[in-house]
Amino acid sequence: MTNVAVAPNEKPTSGAGLRGQSAGTTALCTVGQTGTGLTYRGYDITDLANHAQFEEVAYLLLKGQLPNRQALADYTETLVGKRGLPDALKAVLERIPANAHPMDVMRTGCSMLGNLDQETDFSEQTDKTDTLLAMLPAIICYWYRYSHDGVRVDTYQPEVKSIGGYFLKMLTDETPSPLHESMMHCSLVLYAEHEFNASTFTARVCASTLSDLHSCITAAIGSLRGPLHGGANEAAMAMLEQWRSPDEAEAGLMQMLANKDKVMALAMQFTVSQIPAMPLLSIGRNSLPKTHQTLGFMTCLSGLSR
Amino acid sequence: MTNVAVAPNEKPTSGAGLRGQSAGTTALCTVGQTGTGLTYRGYDITDLANHAQFEEVAYLLLKGQLPNRQALADYTETLVGKRGLPDALKAVLERIPANAHPMDVMRTGCSMLGNLDQETDFSEQTDKTDTLLAMLPAIICYWYRYSHDGVRVDTYQPEVKSIGGYFLKMLTDETPSPLHESMMHCSLVLYAEHEFNASTFTARVCASTLSDLHSCITAAIGSLRGPLHGGANEAAMAMLEQWRSPDEAEAGLMQMLANKDKVMALAMQFTVSQIPAMPLLSIGRNSLPKTHQTLGFMTCLSGLSR
Repeated sequence: MTNVAVAPNEKPTSGAGLRGQSAGTTALCTVGQTGTGLTYRGYDITDLANHAQFEEVAYLLLKGQLPNRQALADYTETLVGKRGLPDALKAVLERIPANAHPMDVMRTGCSMLGNLDQETDFSEQTDKTDTLLAMLPAIICYWYRYSHDGVRVDTYQPEVKSIGGYFLKMLTDETPSPLHESMMHCSLVLYAEHEFNASTFTARVCASTLSDLHSCITAAIGSLRGPLHGGANEAAMAMLEQWRSPDEAEAGLMQMLANKDKVMALAMQFTVSQIPAMPLLSIGRNSLPKTHQTLGFMTCLSGLSR
Repeated sequence: MTNVAVAPNEKPTSGAGLRGQSAGTTALCTVGQTGTGLTYRGYDITDLANHAQFEEVAYLLLKGQLPNRQALADYTETLVGKRGLPDALKAVLERIPANAHPMDVMRTGCSMLGNLDQETDFSEQTDKTDTLLAMLPAIICYWYRYSHDGVRVDTYQPEVKSIGGYFLKMLTDETPSPLHESMMHCSLVLYAEHEFNASTFTARVCASTLSDLHSCITAAIGSLRGPLHGGANEAAMAMLEQWRSPDEAEAGLMQMLANKDKVMALAMQFTVSQIPAMPLLSIGRNSLPKTHQTLGFMTCLSGLSR
């Protein structure tokens, strides 16, 4: 019954326990140090959110440098080629009820994938990471469409190249407009990294036992599900939906702050002076298309939780 | 698509982030302080391993005191009544291949259960904990019997009262002998708590976001899966299986220590002076039935990892 997927002797042991494990330092990201307060591998988040596709940022975070045009095209095709959920994973998603919490669905889908696409060696982690990037949008959309609409959505869709566009296509059955696709890029870029948050911490504790990638990401999703972490996004969305315009939202927010009400965040907690995405409010107001204003405003709000 | 299972305002917020979250302190357990070095709520592990049923220890850990005879009988019946996997969970387990890692199966089963037996309020956690105690043995055994033997095992089995006996019955189709049942009690008691190990730490980081119990336990299983944590058990078992008697095992182990070889542990890492379960070696040799010797010896070994 035992089945050691990865023999301990084949793994580095200097990280035994939390010894040698990176806990609070990272080359990926800085918060509150330079520029507008958030950087990915030295690039200011403002530049990336304005000019980069999400796949470029994923490449930057995973491989350490921005891709050139050809490398981006190749990487995008690699991710497209990894789409298409295994039948066993679809069967699992079909057994999850419509009233499930979407994060519970993601957690279960990721965990199930670990049984089907087993990691046998750490050297496979780049490949498994790409597979997760390719499949996680399908995991949530396949469940959602099946449980809510009774539709078994096509999870391959190679004609839509970007992850954000792929997500929208599965969700709506329509090819997304360039504007909607660019909004997804912006949102995914802004959420791609945030240094040492609770889900990252969870994944690192899990990784300290030399567990596999699927275990670490499954554990991280379990933390992201919490109302004080990713769950705060949901509460923030509910708050935003009561306002009908950016002006109304600003007035409402300032009133909440004056009342010292609790303001739920879209990402995590900061003091006001540490708000990395605040400048994106002005992006939303000025340089981005009108439709981006809400996104820019939402992102701004992510800093205001106390 | 959003679905806040537990509204943030209904949860305590003093634990925001890791603030206020118990990280390294616990009332459940001490390691290396008194008695033979490991206590559960003040009771020495030696007494519990020798005299208690696992359900008594679960009650002790969860409710703070040992049950009297009637309370134990009631609690045992509560757990028995929660057996019987939901059909949707069985369907998921049937889609996991036979070559999956058993910990990946447990992680996926626990995560799936979170979709089916949803926590809507923290007050439900005692009930959910009991359900997990009742169902986790069935999760692993149902998958194992289906994937290896093609058998859909009965996951209710109310005629076998103890969790350990229930596990053996599902695995072997035979009512376990009192000796085998008592060995399962001993093993489960010894593994019930260990203060601040990596899986507990993972669960606590997850809990700090006010996530639900299933997310925390799923995350913890992901850490326990790692070769340096629960995975070390597997390597230790492989090591033990090369020895045919306790004497041969002791000689082999002492040679490994003399060689400064790495000795994989059954639970976690200790320095030699911190081995809490070492006295159980002598239990294994003297006061326990012959069949318990290996278990006592295995438990002793759990201290010797460096």
